[in-house]
Amino acid sequence: MADIQRLKKDYPWIQTPLIIGAPMRLIALGDLAVEISKAGGIGFIGAGTDVSDLSTHLDVAISLLQSSNLQTANGTLPIGVGVINWGASLPDALSIIQKYRPAAVWFFSPSSTSSLVEWTQGTRRASPETKVWVQIGSVKDAFEVLRAVHPDVLVVQGTDAGGHGLAQGASLITLLPEVIDAVQTVTSQESIPSPTILAAGGITESRGAAASFTLGASGVVLGTRFLASPEANISKGYQNAVLGTIDGGQTTVRTKVYDDLRGTTGWAETYNGRGIINKSYTDSLAGMAENENKKLYEKAMEKGDAGWGVEGRMTAYAGAGVGLVREVKGAAEIVREVREGTKAVLEKFSSIAIAGKL
Amino acid sequence: MADIQRLKKDYPWIQTPLIIGAPMRLIALGDLAVEISKAGGIGFIGAGTDVSDLSTHLDVAISLLQSSNLQTANGTLPIGVGVINWGASLPDALSIIQKYRPAAVWFFSPSSTSSLVEWTQGTRRASPETKVWVQIGSVKDAFEVLRAVHPDVLVVQGTDAGGHGLAQGASLITLLPEVIDAVQTVTSQESIPSPTILAAGGITESRGAAASFTLGASGVVLGTRFLASPEANISKGYQNAVLGTIDGGQTTVRTKVYDDLRGTTGWAETYNGRGIINKSYTDSLAGMAENENKKLYEKAMEKGDAGWGVEGRMTAYAGAGVGLVREVKGAAEIVREVREGTKAVLEKFSSIAIAGKL
Repeated sequence: MADIQRLKKDYPWIQTPLIIGAPMRLIALGDLAVEISKAGGIGFIGAGTDVSDLSTHLDVAISLLQSSNLQTANGTLPIGVGVINWGASLPDALSIIQKYRPAAVWFFSPSSTSSLVEWTQGTRRASPETKVWVQIGSVKDAFEVLRAVHPDVLVVQGTDAGGHGLAQGASLITLLPEVIDAVQTVTSQESIPSPTILAAGGITESRGAAASFTLGASGVVLGTRFLASPEANISKGYQNAVLGTIDGGQTTVRTKVYDDLRGTTGWAETYNGRGIINKSYTDSLAGMAENENKKLYEKAMEKGDAGWGVEGRMTAYAGAGVGLVREVKGAAEIVREVREGTKAVLEKFSSIAIAGKL
Repeated sequence: MADIQRLKKDYPWIQTPLIIGAPMRLIALGDLAVEISKAGGIGFIGAGTDVSDLSTHLDVAISLLQSSNLQTANGTLPIGVGVINWGASLPDALSIIQKYRPAAVWFFSPSSTSSLVEWTQGTRRASPETKVWVQIGSVKDAFEVLRAVHPDVLVVQGTDAGGHGLAQGASLITLLPEVIDAVQTVTSQESIPSPTILAAGGITESRGAAASFTLGASGVVLGTRFLASPEANISKGYQNAVLGTIDGGQTTVRTKVYDDLRGTTGWAETYNGRGIINKSYTDSLAGMAENENKKLYEKAMEKGDAGWGVEGRMTAYAGAGVGLVREVKGAAEIVREVREGTKAVLEKFSSIAIAGKL
């Protein structure tokens, strides 16, 4: 949309409509991030709650980028880094940000607004050209983040999203336009710079992407779709679970059960994660004690790829759009396909609308 | 889309993009249904689980339609009737359908597939020109309904919807394209006639409507938006609750609590309803016994308009898009505004896409 000039200034290698790879924790690493950026999108490394291996992943990315000649802004690295703020070390992260100067950092789920302020101020000092992206899932959080840190980018996450997000929420259909209206009001009334607004949560292909643009997004974030790419750092068992699942509204669920089993219990009460329903979940629902369920989970870990799937126990985080993910494709091909497909969908509907045949 | 010729044949008074008024139980009556159809949409009377007053509402509609000269197909009544099948009397409904010949019946939540078959066959015998619409909320249900009754119209309801729907589900962003693909596969492989596919759930204005068309819908259903119209049969307290609520993902919730309080307990376990969070809900969440909560609910009923709102106890069913509903407008004006707005959004994004500036 109108933000396109700014987007191209900050990320000169991109092509529009803009496709972004979600910073899936320990799944989106150097390979995936670089492939997405090389195809004209913006790729992210998902450090998650622990930045101790992040330098290694960034070094891989740098070596993969060497032959690519991507144009960057002031020599920043043409990929981003995603951090789950509540768990990650701020000083360690800042020294990495200072050294590697990623084009963007993507902040998510800080322990408090004042912590988010520290992360943002620290980042802007450590690497002034690095743009600060903040993910939110409600109008209330959008207001708070806008006022507290003046983010460069606001990622609006709808409730169809895979992995972590607000336990209670709305989908992009309702959340995105309401956030956009709220941002417009607040930024104009309070002289806050307007952030670029991106859509995340359930977008797997061109129809969902086109819908997000008509809802007002300036770019779209895909996560689950990239699980079915060779560049994603996931096991074959996980990838097969994604490919084999349809009707995601019924076969995935937002829950804390998987966090409890895996011991990732630092998330605030208001967050949970969407994953494919499996034996761990159905047993928990049927009343199985957590320690018993955990034992079975740990046994399943020893089974390798056979530990996954509906009858398995390994956690396959995935969005409600998982049923639209039907084959493994290279990440670059996914980016190009969704970008061109989005244009085609919008052009088609417009000519139908103009002809009065909608 | 391509279905437009069939839509105009079945409902000759409509204008496209097609806007439909949801058959909100005892809220959408003759007034609202007729205003929507007169504006070129399709209005529905929401009989819900009890058809005993339906003739009265239809008589009102007929008298309101008298001066309108709407073109109809074979003299059917240019509005529809919505029935919640598990609760309604089939013989009573059929004699009304036979007598009044509505342009459409909208079936929702039958007690079983075989019951849905009885309702459909009965309707088609009673009034062959009446089109059978069936609402579903999952790919699984779409398959089942398609095969069982060959519906004329399939209404796909996403989880942002207000009022009743599947407790567990996905939003239109993911559900609608997956259902459309599934319908295309099944109808072509099994020689089943292709239904017209409509989108419902969270659509309150032109951006959500435009998004639904890009996702593949042939028309869009609005419910919550019409709560803020003078033609809706709701109290001022309810309407004010709708107007005063923002950030619907946080301030509405899908729950069975409101059904329990109101005694509407015939819904299958897999269904619940989305309403604005109020004292009844927060007290229930905090562990208040149901009979105590019920007593307080009954007391609130005596307070009139003051019994509503966040601090009240009356149930205000509303969708997650409630924050986009900001003023009371005539139902006909809403229809025209969303129809023209949808065209404008699609034309705008298309020209942006064509110019490479998306």
